[in-house]
Amino acid sequence: MKDLLASAPKNWGRWGPDDELGSLNFLTQQEVLRGIRSVRLGEVYTLGELIANPKGEPVFPGRTGALKFMTQDKSYYKSGKSHSLPGGGEYSDDGITMYLQGSTQYDAMGHFWYDDHIWNGYSADTTMGGMEKASIVPIGEKGVVGRGVLIDMPRIRGKSRLDKGEEITLQDIKDAASKQGVTIEKHDILVIRTAFLQSFYEQSREEFYDGLNEPGMTYSPELVQWFHQMEIPALCTDTMANELTVHPESKVLLPLHCALLRNLGIAFNEICNLEKLAAACERHRKYDFLYVGAPLKVYRGTGAPVNPVAIL
Amino acid sequence: MKDLLASAPKNWGRWGPDDELGSLNFLTQQEVLRGIRSVRLGEVYTLGELIANPKGEPVFPGRTGALKFMTQDKSYYKSGKSHSLPGGGEYSDDGITMYLQGSTQYDAMGHFWYDDHIWNGYSADTTMGGMEKASIVPIGEKGVVGRGVLIDMPRIRGKSRLDKGEEITLQDIKDAASKQGVTIEKHDILVIRTAFLQSFYEQSREEFYDGLNEPGMTYSPELVQWFHQMEIPALCTDTMANELTVHPESKVLLPLHCALLRNLGIAFNEICNLEKLAAACERHRKYDFLYVGAPLKVYRGTGAPVNPVAIL
Amino acid sequence: MKDLLASAPKNWGRWGPDDELGSLNFLTQQEVLRGIRSVRLGEVYTLGELIANPKGEPVFPGRTGALKFMTQDKSYYKSGKSHSLPGGGEYSDDGITMYLQGSTQYDAMGHFWYDDHIWNGYSADTTMGGMEKASIVPIGEKGVVGRGVLIDMPRIRGKSRLDKGEEITLQDIKDAASKQGVTIEKHDILVIRTAFLQSFYEQSREEFYDGLNEPGMTYSPELVQWFHQMEIPALCTDTMANELTVHPESKVLLPLHCALLRNLGIAFNEICNLEKLAAACERHRKYDFLYVGAPLKVYRGTGAPVNPVAIL
Amino acid sequence: MKDLLASAPKNWGRWGPDDELGSLNFLTQQEVLRGIRSVRLGEVYTLGELIANPKGEPVFPGRTGALKFMTQDKSYYKSGKSHSLPGGGEYSDDGITMYLQGSTQYDAMGHFWYDDHIWNGYSADTTMGGMEKASIVPIGEKGVVGRGVLIDMPRIRGKSRLDKGEEITLQDIKDAASKQGVTIEKHDILVIRTAFLQSFYEQSREEFYDGLNEPGMTYSPELVQWFHQMEIPALCTDTMANELTVHPESKVLLPLHCALLRNLGIAFNEICNLEKLAAACERHRKYDFLYVGAPLKVYRGTGAPVNPVAIL
Repeated sequence: MKDLLASAPKNWGRWGPDDELGSLNFLTQQEVLRGIRSVRLGEVYTLGELIANPKGEPVFPGRTGALKFMTQDKSYYKSGKSHSLPGGGEYSDDGITMYLQGSTQYDAMGHFWYDDHIWNGYSADTTMGGMEKASIVPIGEKGVVGRGVLIDMPRIRGKSRLDKGEEITLQDIKDAASKQGVTIEKHDILVIRTAFLQSFYEQSREEFYDGLNEPGMTYSPELVQWFHQMEIPALCTDTMANELTVHPESKVLLPLHCALLRNLGIAFNEICNLEKLAAACERHRKYDFLYVGAPLKVYRGTGAPVNPVAIL
Repeated sequence: MKDLLASAPKNWGRWGPDDELGSLNFLTQQEVLRGIRSVRLGEVYTLGELIANPKGEPVFPGRTGALKFMTQDKSYYKSGKSHSLPGGGEYSDDGITMYLQGSTQYDAMGHFWYDDHIWNGYSADTTMGGMEKASIVPIGEKGVVGRGVLIDMPRIRGKSRLDKGEEITLQDIKDAASKQGVTIEKHDILVIRTAFLQSFYEQSREEFYDGLNEPGMTYSPELVQWFHQMEIPALCTDTMANELTVHPESKVLLPLHCALLRNLGIAFNEICNLEKLAAACERHRKYDFLYVGAPLKVYRGTGAPVNPVAIL
Repeated sequence: MKDLLASAPKNWGRWGPDDELGSLNFLTQQEVLRGIRSVRLGEVYTLGELIANPKGEPVFPGRTGALKFMTQDKSYYKSGKSHSLPGGGEYSDDGITMYLQGSTQYDAMGHFWYDDHIWNGYSADTTMGGMEKASIVPIGEKGVVGRGVLIDMPRIRGKSRLDKGEEITLQDIKDAASKQGVTIEKHDILVIRTAFLQSFYEQSREEFYDGLNEPGMTYSPELVQWFHQMEIPALCTDTMANELTVHPESKVLLPLHCALLRNLGIAFNEICNLEKLAAACERHRKYDFLYVGAPLKVYRGTGAPVNPVAIL
Repeated sequence: MKDLLASAPKNWGRWGPDDELGSLNFLTQQEVLRGIRSVRLGEVYTLGELIANPKGEPVFPGRTGALKFMTQDKSYYKSGKSHSLPGGGEYSDDGITMYLQGSTQYDAMGHFWYDDHIWNGYSADTTMGGMEKASIVPIGEKGVVGRGVLIDMPRIRGKSRLDKGEEITLQDIKDAASKQGVTIEKHDILVIRTAFLQSFYEQSREEFYDGLNEPGMTYSPELVQWFHQMEIPALCTDTMANELTVHPESKVLLPLHCALLRNLGIAFNEICNLEKLAAACERHRKYDFLYVGAPLKVYRGTGAPVNPVAIL
């Protein structure tokens, strides 16, 4: 990683030594208003996946799906375990145990690192026992709001979904935008569809995880330079890790987590479901929208669930 | 409850026998665009409370605060329990156990009932083992987006926060809107500030829970009729249950959960933090905004966490 | 099930209408002392499986393995998240989320049923929202203590472990005891080794769960009659469900759970690890021992973890 | 702590550099047989507290009680969420989230430390991300079995329970044993009753935790020397931490955790319920018994729940 990213740009210090928001700082009031102006139809699409899905949940290896459980429902009243409130009101209640990055979520800015330092140069030791620096809380406090642009790779490539290991280059993105008739502007929130995660629900788990190499972009000097110059605040995809899992030449895993998240402070919104949004974009030939994503404010969280909203 | 609400209006069947969205159906594209048009400044405020707050979390009696836990951080690499990914990448990871209604959240439309039937007339038996009908998923799928209006009761009453048992009447709301120079329009998302939950962080738990009777509105025929005629889609407050806990005359608990949520299908967004939003509204003398709230899509959930966003 | 067990014996009412212990009532002080007398060597073997095993845990389909998590360790002190106690003491701490029957455990007497009634004739409705009757608590209160006898089927059959679907008949058990030189006495705790679960750790999960049909005993009138006449208080095996999963003729699932647990009140101790105990029994040609198993007293639990002890 | 324990004895290295069992090594087959011989009556007492008690659970500050939840019961079948197994069998199921030291439990030998080293001199860094050394697993593997002796302080002092801050000296223990007519022998498992935790269930939480200073023994050179010479393998009490919380002179917290657990390797079994055992001991004027305690084998656990058994 160190070699691979030796000459890659960094935004450390750009917003002061105490910054925990990184490129989300680019999302000023003007950018919010630019996002607002992109709305024409008033159609709303939510991008969160189903949590505690009984069919299973696509999670990065090492994590497990959510466990949801009941603590009260009508059967508790029927069997005398709960009693109606004064006046006769009754209610159901439940809880959940889940990985904070076990479904649609934002990474904390300090979630991924190499060389013992996280975003903005904070020591990786600050992650011990919970994120003291660059946790998910500042992102949850600010909210990610701006103009979003969808790049729909499967439609461009004429297939239902991208395959394992299928790469998306910077040129692919530029060409796709052009074909879609949309301009990626500075400070846009980039939303890239691969449809890859949908295969999870149609395959056995073994098939899905066997030789797992998610499709997506990967490190190249040009690509990272482009994100840097375009001052992209956030990247949102429908894969578990927002990038080609394995860098083809170097075999380094997840280099964009380092080049974009750690070094440039670009927020990562992963495991989105872009199916309905993409269909609407195609239907209306309109690929930009107001994007609103505000992860839960989980104290010292390494990430947190979110149900992002796109308003066309 | 049955007596109290004998003549109260119901929207059951209004959107068909299979409806699970209730008055959120009022939030059409036109209303979304009306919300969009209310934005002038581009300022963003997030309304979620801090989850897994080490100072504790204000939860309705019977629930407990979240338990957040680490499953990976720099110490795992240091002690040899985890190994860097190929190339040197490392990451932190964590999980959470929490009540789905244990922080800022939306109630599922079927979460609260009396007389053995939930929203739209579904049997309360459908809640057994998880919400088969009117779960949080349809709300998470749709997203709650429209024009929000803040009513800031403490500022109107010249106090830092409302007290236990302090009531807000329909007339109070109308007067407050008038004083604030804002008009509550049909289909607006009503956001009412009491600042009550802030007392949780400044008192001992015993003081806070002793004789707990949250301030807020309570059942009256006029009030419910007004919500009905105004076709309010959602109610959002900074209390745990969005209403005066105890109805003063009848001593019935939580009658608005029945009159508004169960009978009219008005979505309840509870435990919000409205402090920063209210300060901004006052500063700009602007009390309307685009409200965007999309709870997590938790399978059969009785409710789900959300970090709502207000854009001024 | 109803047809299959139409003529099967029942102990309902035998110990009164309020009984929640079933055949564990046979474990009187005399039987405890008989167990004590069976000890000659003072060797101790614990029968619990490893919980939160990173290699995975063999659980019955529908359950998942435990999730263990840290809440404090040395890294919390190093990074300033925790502070030494006055005087300098420090400590590590952790928690777990697990199915109560997700590792070595006892079933509550009311855990499994058919025909809407659980052990002793209590309504299955009493299970709603937690075991009001015949929960794990009475078993945890009493403790299961007596003379245990191991039947080591793989050794008898000259194989390392029993295969999927391999049946053990009553005659097999009698023959095995005879070959082992041990007499099964009235009120003995029967411990049957199959070594089947050890295959979990050596196969892929798919292989293990594909066509899952655990080896073991299954329903026959003679077998159930024998358990009834021998007044066996508890059955302990190293499989997930203590019986041949599928009854060969009728294709009924888990009929012994009904014939032995539900009808006769025989306690089920499942998912044991009998490897070391079996090796010791063979080494010493001694197949009886003091068995001590006391599951955790979990309020209204459908079962609870236990680490049983055998003293040779 | 360092000053206080400067001259205190250590067993580090006594059982080799890889030892994780400490003084439990004293529990040889001979000691197990000595425990067996102490049984005369065949009465069984289980010492575990109720877990997930709806009245709350006495836990050391910083922990919370267990959260138990249903995942299946009769209501799931009634509402169509679960389907009977082939043949008609049905079952209830549940899960739990709990601190591993949140009820009756054993500390791992490395759970508590000072001066950056845990039992046997392992670095405290080995606790990071889970107990790599001296976890609960070796204790769960071995099982704690031997002759137990109960010292019933409240009965000796003629009161229902010890008060906050009430000290038990070595002389008190010797005198009590003498009055009880029991001899504490080398390698006995020492069980000390204070009845203190019973006050938890009779007070408000505030009263219980206010100025919390559990009664018990505390550090003195004589006391620790006695434990050392008597080669006591395990200490079991009905308090949360097995010792006077605050050392009166030095104000050091929990010095016996360091002097006995960390330095001598004496196993700590905490939060026991000794009420029924103590009543039986008095009734029979018999204060020794076979003690059998085998905590769950939780991978890398800092401790684990146990339901210990005493056989009189």
